[in-house]
Amino acid sequence: MERVLIVGTGLIGASVGLALRAAGFEGAIVGAGSSAETLKIALAMGAIDLACGPAEAEAAAVASDVILLAGPVLTIEDWMQRLAPKLGEAHLVTDVGSTKRVIAELGAKLYNRAGKARFLPGHPMAGKESGGAALAEAGLFRDAMWLFTPLSGGACELDEEWREWVGKFGARRMDLDAGRHDEICAWVSHLPQMVATALSAVLEERFEKDQAGRAEIAAIGGRALREMTRLGASPYSMWRDIAMTNAEAIAATLYALEQELAHVRENLRTPELKEEFGRANEFRGRR
Amino acid sequence: MERVLIVGTGLIGASVGLALRAAGFEGAIVGAGSSAETLKIALAMGAIDLACGPAEAEAAAVASDVILLAGPVLTIEDWMQRLAPKLGEAHLVTDVGSTKRVIAELGAKLYNRAGKARFLPGHPMAGKESGGAALAEAGLFRDAMWLFTPLSGGACELDEEWREWVGKFGARRMDLDAGRHDEICAWVSHLPQMVATALSAVLEERFEKDQAGRAEIAAIGGRALREMTRLGASPYSMWRDIAMTNAEAIAATLYALEQELAHVRENLRTPELKEEFGRANEFRGRR
Repeated sequence: MERVLIVGTGLIGASVGLALRAAGFEGAIVGAGSSAETLKIALAMGAIDLACGPAEAEAAAVASDVILLAGPVLTIEDWMQRLAPKLGEAHLVTDVGSTKRVIAELGAKLYNRAGKARFLPGHPMAGKESGGAALAEAGLFRDAMWLFTPLSGGACELDEEWREWVGKFGARRMDLDAGRHDEICAWVSHLPQMVATALSAVLEERFEKDQAGRAEIAAIGGRALREMTRLGASPYSMWRDIAMTNAEAIAATLYALEQELAHVRENLRTPELKEEFGRANEFRGRR
Repeated sequence: MERVLIVGTGLIGASVGLALRAAGFEGAIVGAGSSAETLKIALAMGAIDLACGPAEAEAAAVASDVILLAGPVLTIEDWMQRLAPKLGEAHLVTDVGSTKRVIAELGAKLYNRAGKARFLPGHPMAGKESGGAALAEAGLFRDAMWLFTPLSGGACELDEEWREWVGKFGARRMDLDAGRHDEICAWVSHLPQMVATALSAVLEERFEKDQAGRAEIAAIGGRALREMTRLGASPYSMWRDIAMTNAEAIAATLYALEQELAHVRENLRTPELKEEFGRANEFRGRR
């Protein structure tokens, strides 16, 4: 691996550039993307050596060994489509998209065939409440889990080398099936987000026209409320593609939680509430 | 105020004893309660000067100026019943119960009448994930909100003096109606707890028999899951009386959230999800 192209130099893309440098990568790191401002910041931070606009991205990809696609899932899919016809077997394309089923399906269709580039779907479990290159850090992936959902026929030397670099970023690595990835992520990441969003939104609706209530909530609400609504600040732009591309799995977790909340509601005065707290204590006790 | 009786010297009761001393109270602080072990710890920590068992508590209450009732709401109600016939107009009884409507109703019936003690319902918004005297701290109430839901006819000199001591603990103070207290606390405290409990419980149920899934959750789950389920560790014993005595208000908040989650579930692929994130962002932006 001597030349890397990072397509999309926001928080994750730019952090990968910084992490590569911090881990001792001496080759070229080129950035591409549609936002000139984002590229400028990534360049100024030293996350990339060179920046090219969307028109030059295809040529830059051809000239690179590894192409990392960063950004929202549907944007990654667009780039997968655009780059597949231009690249060959010597290229490795990998990504950092938050859901993996649709990306793995598209990857199997467009890559890992005779004359086509290799594709390795990946997903670092790292991020911040807001995105943007300016928040990028070389240490973002330290102790984080970097998941891979490899396709059949994708293994190659660059695949191994890329995994080694990810290890040098300080990340833990794990392989799993793409569908299983999306199901587990629905439970541990997408459901908690949707719950925080719904809880914040229902409080907003209930107290929108109750100014005294808003003041009381501000005065009385403590750590529990703060913690359970913190993710309510997450922007839609970061979640749209996740909701779009993992809707069924997320809907299943939401439905299960709705049933559980109804069960709590119907048992506030019965001994069944004790059983419910017991199950919750079990879950937490394991963590 | 020269002599204070603290009935129930767990986390909150013992912390009040320590806070009184730290704030310069020089009178006697007596502890009472049904757990000899809890009283022993409170005594050893210096939260109380003297400990008496449940049989001596009535005499100790008569000999005190201010009687603070700490512990679960239904236990506080028991003590309100037991002490009311023994005390007179020179006594102030106050409490730290988590819900206030049933306590205020009982207070209005048994206290604040000719020949009866004064009663001031109170509720410090402070606590920890686990209870117990051993975790008590003089600084527990610093910057916390101490709510009062005063009854008509309850104002007296000891009432004023007690509020001053609470101020000296470093707490902010606010008066509100008991019913409103319970409604606001349902939104800012009880609902977040029930959501964390239900979320933890549904994860436990889903993955109880899926050992590989449990390992994946442990490996993949990050801050979002940790934060949204932290309160799942709360013991039923701390929540039973809250659920019992505020069931209607809690049920209303749970029902509203169930509807909101269903709305999210039905709109994972529609622009309405953007509106939902927008409302959540509004709520968080105000905080």
